[in-house]
Amino acid sequence: MSFEPSEKTQAILDMINEFVDKELVPMEAEMKGKEFYAWEPELAKKRQMVRDMELWAPLHPKEYGGMGLPLMDTAMIFEALGRTPFGLYVFGCQAPDAGNAEILHKFGTPEQKEKYLRPVIEGKMRSCFSMTEVEVAGSNPTWLLTTAEKDGDDYVINGHKWFTSSADGSDFAIVMAETNPEAESRHKRASMIIVPTDTPGFNLVRNISVMGHSGEGYPSHAEISYQNCRVPKKNILGGEGMGFVLAQERLGPGRIHHCMRWIGIMNHSFDLMCSYAKSRRRTPTQVLADSDIIKSYVADSAADILSSRLMVLNAAHIIQTRGVKDAMKDISIIKFYVANALQRVIDRALQVHGGLGMSDDTPIAAYYRQNRDARFIDGVDEVHKISVARRILKEY
Amino acid sequence: MSFEPSEKTQAILDMINEFVDKELVPMEAEMKGKEFYAWEPELAKKRQMVRDMELWAPLHPKEYGGMGLPLMDTAMIFEALGRTPFGLYVFGCQAPDAGNAEILHKFGTPEQKEKYLRPVIEGKMRSCFSMTEVEVAGSNPTWLLTTAEKDGDDYVINGHKWFTSSADGSDFAIVMAETNPEAESRHKRASMIIVPTDTPGFNLVRNISVMGHSGEGYPSHAEISYQNCRVPKKNILGGEGMGFVLAQERLGPGRIHHCMRWIGIMNHSFDLMCSYAKSRRRTPTQVLADSDIIKSYVADSAADILSSRLMVLNAAHIIQTRGVKDAMKDISIIKFYVANALQRVIDRALQVHGGLGMSDDTPIAAYYRQNRDARFIDGVDEVHKISVARRILKEY
Amino acid sequence: MSFEPSEKTQAILDMINEFVDKELVPMEAEMKGKEFYAWEPELAKKRQMVRDMELWAPLHPKEYGGMGLPLMDTAMIFEALGRTPFGLYVFGCQAPDAGNAEILHKFGTPEQKEKYLRPVIEGKMRSCFSMTEVEVAGSNPTWLLTTAEKDGDDYVINGHKWFTSSADGSDFAIVMAETNPEAESRHKRASMIIVPTDTPGFNLVRNISVMGHSGEGYPSHAEISYQNCRVPKKNILGGEGMGFVLAQERLGPGRIHHCMRWIGIMNHSFDLMCSYAKSRRRTPTQVLADSDIIKSYVADSAADILSSRLMVLNAAHIIQTRGVKDAMKDISIIKFYVANALQRVIDRALQVHGGLGMSDDTPIAAYYRQNRDARFIDGVDEVHKISVARRILKEY
Amino acid sequence: MSFEPSEKTQAILDMINEFVDKELVPMEAEMKGKEFYAWEPELAKKRQMVRDMELWAPLHPKEYGGMGLPLMDTAMIFEALGRTPFGLYVFGCQAPDAGNAEILHKFGTPEQKEKYLRPVIEGKMRSCFSMTEVEVAGSNPTWLLTTAEKDGDDYVINGHKWFTSSADGSDFAIVMAETNPEAESRHKRASMIIVPTDTPGFNLVRNISVMGHSGEGYPSHAEISYQNCRVPKKNILGGEGMGFVLAQERLGPGRIHHCMRWIGIMNHSFDLMCSYAKSRRRTPTQVLADSDIIKSYVADSAADILSSRLMVLNAAHIIQTRGVKDAMKDISIIKFYVANALQRVIDRALQVHGGLGMSDDTPIAAYYRQNRDARFIDGVDEVHKISVARRILKEY
Repeated sequence: MSFEPSEKTQAILDMINEFVDKELVPMEAEMKGKEFYAWEPELAKKRQMVRDMELWAPLHPKEYGGMGLPLMDTAMIFEALGRTPFGLYVFGCQAPDAGNAEILHKFGTPEQKEKYLRPVIEGKMRSCFSMTEVEVAGSNPTWLLTTAEKDGDDYVINGHKWFTSSADGSDFAIVMAETNPEAESRHKRASMIIVPTDTPGFNLVRNISVMGHSGEGYPSHAEISYQNCRVPKKNILGGEGMGFVLAQERLGPGRIHHCMRWIGIMNHSFDLMCSYAKSRRRTPTQVLADSDIIKSYVADSAADILSSRLMVLNAAHIIQTRGVKDAMKDISIIKFYVANALQRVIDRALQVHGGLGMSDDTPIAAYYRQNRDARFIDGVDEVHKISVARRILKEY
Repeated sequence: MSFEPSEKTQAILDMINEFVDKELVPMEAEMKGKEFYAWEPELAKKRQMVRDMELWAPLHPKEYGGMGLPLMDTAMIFEALGRTPFGLYVFGCQAPDAGNAEILHKFGTPEQKEKYLRPVIEGKMRSCFSMTEVEVAGSNPTWLLTTAEKDGDDYVINGHKWFTSSADGSDFAIVMAETNPEAESRHKRASMIIVPTDTPGFNLVRNISVMGHSGEGYPSHAEISYQNCRVPKKNILGGEGMGFVLAQERLGPGRIHHCMRWIGIMNHSFDLMCSYAKSRRRTPTQVLADSDIIKSYVADSAADILSSRLMVLNAAHIIQTRGVKDAMKDISIIKFYVANALQRVIDRALQVHGGLGMSDDTPIAAYYRQNRDARFIDGVDEVHKISVARRILKEY
Repeated sequence: MSFEPSEKTQAILDMINEFVDKELVPMEAEMKGKEFYAWEPELAKKRQMVRDMELWAPLHPKEYGGMGLPLMDTAMIFEALGRTPFGLYVFGCQAPDAGNAEILHKFGTPEQKEKYLRPVIEGKMRSCFSMTEVEVAGSNPTWLLTTAEKDGDDYVINGHKWFTSSADGSDFAIVMAETNPEAESRHKRASMIIVPTDTPGFNLVRNISVMGHSGEGYPSHAEISYQNCRVPKKNILGGEGMGFVLAQERLGPGRIHHCMRWIGIMNHSFDLMCSYAKSRRRTPTQVLADSDIIKSYVADSAADILSSRLMVLNAAHIIQTRGVKDAMKDISIIKFYVANALQRVIDRALQVHGGLGMSDDTPIAAYYRQNRDARFIDGVDEVHKISVARRILKEY
Repeated sequence: MSFEPSEKTQAILDMINEFVDKELVPMEAEMKGKEFYAWEPELAKKRQMVRDMELWAPLHPKEYGGMGLPLMDTAMIFEALGRTPFGLYVFGCQAPDAGNAEILHKFGTPEQKEKYLRPVIEGKMRSCFSMTEVEVAGSNPTWLLTTAEKDGDDYVINGHKWFTSSADGSDFAIVMAETNPEAESRHKRASMIIVPTDTPGFNLVRNISVMGHSGEGYPSHAEISYQNCRVPKKNILGGEGMGFVLAQERLGPGRIHHCMRWIGIMNHSFDLMCSYAKSRRRTPTQVLADSDIIKSYVADSAADILSSRLMVLNAAHIIQTRGVKDAMKDISIIKFYVANALQRVIDRALQVHGGLGMSDDTPIAAYYRQNRDARFIDGVDEVHKISVARRILKEY
């Protein structure tokens, strides 16, 4: 495989992999069936260990307490951390904080940075990103029913959002709302506004039950009603009408990280499939792996993973060397390609495991139900395909 | 559509559909998140209503309290009941009782029929079928590690089973165990034995957590340890060494019913997808259904459902007119074809719903995670395909 | 399989199958590499044998010399004849004559019937259908660049058509042209006009080379330039502005027949695949059929064929019992479903044959290249899917 | 895209691309329908131009008249040349000469090199590789029915081969035959022997008609009967029993080249699809590219091509930096992955073109029918998948 990591990066990856194997994977069984607030203290200890090893927040800027690593490196770190559900959180890289930190860093005022960015990167605050609306399909940053009206020195926000991940227990939300309905361009009507979650009018209606679980705390997805929710004007992020631009910014490297985390999940599923196929007897003398059909699942999955990995690293390489703009087509391609590869690889792993694959005795069942959203979060497959084609067809 | 129901059958279907719409569908929201024992009393009332309407147990013999309808009719009834998770249970058609009743009726002694068959059909007892083993891939009735040794007038059963559905709260299990290890043919080594669940040595280890839920009562899947579990010899079903034959018997019409229930689920998912696509705005002036890609999902799903339905009814027709033996190839074809069509249709419905499809605000998320087993219960896809091909290639 | 033929129909099918096996299949090898005019005399002899057996033109009305069989019967006959490339032609059922005869019968004047319909059904004339245009994608009967202007008692036709199948050697063409550009509804602008091929201005530019062959005579596809091509007004078929309506009429039962012919091709490909898999050694002790992957191809192909056949017969049944209108959705479904099933089955048969499958030593290579058009003739897949979805979504 | 070519390589690629556009693509139309011997003189002129530009035989050793470029470079050259059917031949890179030259270079005696290798590289001789047998499925170098018996100073070859590509007009064949039936290992029974085609007993039975064409000269596939075909012992290549080893050697870099040529074909098909979709009107105001379904074909094809290209270059990189042995898994993965991607991309391009795609007015129809062999030449998909899985599962 090319796109090899440098020696230094490899050393970091080795440390991370060892930590994952020794400290995180064993936790999985213990934590099973318990909700977030029950396992938070244990996770806090692990986070401290990571800080002590100086591996905290690899993707965040050094000046705010991260490692400040370049994208190609963090991409591979996300792959390594994707193998375990606690990985990103324990290393201070979890969404949506990571994306929020990114735009706060790029567009925040000095005051916003001290008040919100620093504590998020340090892991002292959690945040959420409140964009998806109840009444509108998809997450369309050019068509928002949530409004933020100016009133004196304040914005007054009204609207109905859901799938605001991690809102439960968050310290603040970055809310996408229409501030400039009169703007001629649809792309200049929306803004992002920082809303502390203890602001009156920020009403967390419920943690939505997703695939059978409402969850709580970090791994939850809230419905939020904004009712005359008033925040000072200085809470705007990046300026009025900049919502669309910031939303786009937030997505580029974010998708690389999403995809690499998925590749981590694919790697793990693939491992489980191969181990099980080699060990599980289907007759007194044969194991599952003796079936040519099982073998074809292994080969197809290997191709899915290899192609995904090369395409994601290639896109990361373009971003790192030439900027996000030159990589837009590639980022859209990996978004739908890797999401579908992920679903196929998990599906085959589940099929090979049979009933066991449906049970929570392996992580495959959780991978299966929780990652089905890969094909529509941050843009549905269908829209990404159209967007890729548009960029290509422009040249003809 | 041909294979039209008779007028009489149509009248029954109309009554059932009305009952489902009026009595069962509205329950779904209320029951959400509650476990079985909480909703059992309400279900008991509905069951009584069904008995009062003389629609109880359509597939079971009249002499034991059922309606004694032929397969083509019960097939369509399963389609109608498949639309709601409570359907089969409320109408006294639920697995695994239905399959157990079938073999008890065909192979039980008069005493067994009075003691077990009659109360099961009447809904006074629940039962389970204990075949799948922890150590052996799939459910292989010719290779069992569970043994039933003769000891005086008794069998002494030892073994480790799991995915014994509905064991929690069952009155008895039909246990598949090796009684004749010395039999030359692998197909004559196993027997089925009736084991009351209060027999010492019948140990329900746990309800397995499946796709995030352990459940309880009827909708649960148990791990069971049989430890010197002793039952009288007269509890054998159909004679020693008949286990394989009975297992096959159990599967033929059972697969028709499984498939028709799945078609009910497809119909419901399809309905939800179409309604949502028509009503959900993706822009101020367009709904999802305005997308040609969404339209292609609708068309592909319609083809999946139509082809599934015709093939299942065709197989049912062959069974009804010429017997199970002549339908073996068709039964295997529908088993893998419909299971995959089901997965595709649910997947498209979920994709169209996006985040809402992941939430438990619609039944699609539950369909998605609970029905993934369709592709391996009662035989994995891969084995059914091989079996179909063997039957075909024999002729060449 | 239900939709069983009546005893009488079965007897006809038996005769046809015997004739195909004895008289037509053996011709295939001889005729290989020869063009149409070389084998026409031999085919003429076979046609006479069919007439002598009173099996001529099963789908055409008795009064014009056909057998006047209903659709369900002719559907099964097309399946039987689809097994050999000469089948339909030898039995007087070949496209495009069959479709032309159908609309001449339904919409022709008595004079048109005597002059064109009778000789076509008797096999004394050949005809073509000239609709597809060079400059316009697909065959869009509501957007034609070919015009027929009224001039005294005549129409003067100008336009550029291609993929006018069988034009070479035809006696007349039915030409689709715009006669009423001013009509408000796009669906009332076009008309069908009978144009004898010896009319001045009917210029057959070339037989288009399709998949490496230009062909000649019946199996060819012409490019035709209409240059001031003048025909009397009485040559209009079904009245001015009726082009769209007639085109739709032509397609309903025609698609049933297309699909059943394709099923004949699938049956043949499947047979060849199974025979070869059973006989071809891959090692000194094993044949191809010993591979589980090959077995899965057999099973998937069996499911493709069974589902196709049931859906087509179901659509035919609806047409026959309730009319074309009620079957529009089903007709569109089979059009794209069966075309894709056909491609899959042929592809698997070719893959199993390996190099031999690429060679013309079996008919598979010809099936592969010639039937790729199934997915777009008479409407591309994509358009049929949209049309199916529209009909369905209207109900929501 | 990473794996960027060096500046020097880029310069070579630019020259090649310009030559292809100016000198080769325009020839395609002229040459259409003509057989090889008719266009050979024109091709000879182009070959001379290539020699004059010092771009001849980029993959062959300098000492024999080639450019001696490394694999990563030749891979990209094959992509550039794959765009036109004449590309490889005109640049002296065509199979099977390329593979033959490779093993002659690695394993030939000095005499063999002068007599066969040099003239092949110089383009003065053509050669073929005679391995595939009529009676045995696939090309199995461990199970050959063709024998080469020692008789004095000679081998006497008897056997029946086919799909010996380019045999017509070749100067010599490299024949795979069993020389050591008694060898314990199946992998040591076969040898490769150089057989001049004018040797008595080398009987070219026919050029097999493939996808409708027998062809002649270079682009043909012969059936050859070896009847007491006697050649001196010194014609053995690499020693007795080395047939399997040499056959493996021949395949590694060869597959890289095959795959890159296919990527060239995909690039071309993709270009044609995009251009056509942008220019072809489907209604008076819309072109094909306005359809979201067509757009999804563009996006899926872009993903197919990008993933293929990255995986092939990655495999080439491994071969170049670590040797063929370390790349065996990757080579097998690209073999089946790229072959299937190729088929999908061509299929979509054809579908977008509709009838025009079936015609020989574009090269798509030829791509469609001629490249169907990609999924089985040099090992069928199914076997490559099994081989990939075996390598992977060994580690578990």
